[in-house]
Amino acid sequence: MLEHGGNLQQAATQYGIPLADWLDLSTGINPQNYPIPPLPPALFQRLPTINDGLHAAAQNYYGAPHLLACAGSQAALQVLPALRKACRVAMPRTMYQEHAHAWQRAGHTMHFFDQQPDADTLHNTDVLLLCNPNNPTGQLYPVATLLSWHAQLAARGGWLVVDEAFMDTTPQRSLASHTGQPGLWVLRSLGKFFGLAGLRVGFLLGEQTALAAVESLLGPWTITGPSRHIAQLALEDTGWQQPMREHLSAQSRQLLQLLSRYGLNPTGGTDLFQYVEHPASRQLQNALAKQGVWTRYFESPLALRFGLPPLTEWARLEQALIKATADLNG
Amino acid sequence: MLEHGGNLQQAATQYGIPLADWLDLSTGINPQNYPIPPLPPALFQRLPTINDGLHAAAQNYYGAPHLLACAGSQAALQVLPALRKACRVAMPRTMYQEHAHAWQRAGHTMHFFDQQPDADTLHNTDVLLLCNPNNPTGQLYPVATLLSWHAQLAARGGWLVVDEAFMDTTPQRSLASHTGQPGLWVLRSLGKFFGLAGLRVGFLLGEQTALAAVESLLGPWTITGPSRHIAQLALEDTGWQQPMREHLSAQSRQLLQLLSRYGLNPTGGTDLFQYVEHPASRQLQNALAKQGVWTRYFESPLALRFGLPPLTEWARLEQALIKATADLNG
Repeated sequence: MLEHGGNLQQAATQYGIPLADWLDLSTGINPQNYPIPPLPPALFQRLPTINDGLHAAAQNYYGAPHLLACAGSQAALQVLPALRKACRVAMPRTMYQEHAHAWQRAGHTMHFFDQQPDADTLHNTDVLLLCNPNNPTGQLYPVATLLSWHAQLAARGGWLVVDEAFMDTTPQRSLASHTGQPGLWVLRSLGKFFGLAGLRVGFLLGEQTALAAVESLLGPWTITGPSRHIAQLALEDTGWQQPMREHLSAQSRQLLQLLSRYGLNPTGGTDLFQYVEHPASRQLQNALAKQGVWTRYFESPLALRFGLPPLTEWARLEQALIKATADLNG
Repeated sequence: MLEHGGNLQQAATQYGIPLADWLDLSTGINPQNYPIPPLPPALFQRLPTINDGLHAAAQNYYGAPHLLACAGSQAALQVLPALRKACRVAMPRTMYQEHAHAWQRAGHTMHFFDQQPDADTLHNTDVLLLCNPNNPTGQLYPVATLLSWHAQLAARGGWLVVDEAFMDTTPQRSLASHTGQPGLWVLRSLGKFFGLAGLRVGFLLGEQTALAAVESLLGPWTITGPSRHIAQLALEDTGWQQPMREHLSAQSRQLLQLLSRYGLNPTGGTDLFQYVEHPASRQLQNALAKQGVWTRYFESPLALRFGLPPLTEWARLEQALIKATADLNG
């Protein structure tokens, strides 16, 4: 298994700090998750029902004509490589690595580029994989650029696959409303903005016939009854969504300012995390971890990703940053 | 998608009876499910943790040295065909059809036999698929027979795959404790005995190296946080399990007697359902459905499967049977 944020048990063992005592900033999961409603027992007992309104709620929320609910966007990204014969796949070097892992395992050939694919790369690629905004760098690709790349790829049977796991606070930058045409896939997830990573609900947005092929491959009942129920409520609850967008945007600005105050200037970010390239990232992660603050470390380039703390933990984070950065300079 | 029990929405539409008014006997799911405990919110919010004790609880419950938790036994049966090159697969004609569907879709060649594979079939088969007890016929294969079939298959690299979805009330008949050797796979599920079909938790029991290959194929986080938590409690709760085994056995005998009283003599069954071959099965299903009782119809051979009713619904079932069988004879 690849390394991921959220591996708190590992940190707890390594640093000898009980699980419950950690401030976990290692993921980009919203710490104020969509509240869990009362769950009728039948949701646990019966086979999950398909015609329950989840797809309609998602079509409305994403503004997409066709989509398929999956057990997290992980399930979606794993199934796509099975739909193509071995081909040439390109993605940014610094990006969520499960994509490359899934395509390589299925026998495809990976090519990595820095930030943007150049004309040569586009010309020699069958499938272009992007995270938009990019995880962990926060880079946001303009819609017009993405559509032009898609047009070039689709003209010769290629695909553009865009993982929009962190797009919920900026829906106007999403490709969701452009999906439905051949060769364009968008992945969405309820893990990050809604803070429901434990539910394993994501969506694959795409062309109708291709989605039917995916549905057949994934088989029946891939999402639990309680997860379908909660996901539908969350997607329909515009009264929760709009204030949360503004709140997260403000919180992320606050995080940027806090990190900058201690010399950790974010080089990028989203409304759910800040990304700091820093030569002493390993030492910083270690110094923060000793104080029970867990961050996500990246080796190439050397960087840390900081998720948002819960409202009550800002002071603790600041104290930890003071000590960790003092250690670094001391 | 294949037809299944549990398709109550379809019945509700077809017969114009609201969903909530049905007595659903179309599955073999225990109507008295394992009670849902309070669920800490972190289970919904965080990525599911792997080292949570679920595997240890399952190893103890099944008495199996190596296993892998999957999103229902459906996920397990779908992944196995990907581990072999195109080969010859045999299973009983009357058996849970998702197995054949999964192997055929992956390019394998299916051969169907009646009840038991003969020597020729065994000799010409690479993978033998069985449900034990069989769903829907209830046929139970002796452990010694299964082990001898496995030995024949394994000697030339073949597999025996046994789906034990309905084995929990008769653990002494399980192959679980024999797993760990090459070529033997056992599938278990929390859907039936524990009555937790909505959770999507099952287990694949097998040889350690092969299980690692499956784990890599399935990828991370295939089971939700709440599902892992509930599953572990259910598997550890021997105080719930033992009385439930006795209770279900008694309930199923009661169902057999009730059906027999109205001329519907079960030709087989388990502690969770009775199986009635009957030439007028379609008319019977229809007559029961008009009264809001939903059963599972099988076309070849013509048969109905009756799951157990909840404790409060026995009288309603009897009334429906009186009317349906009178209609048949009238």
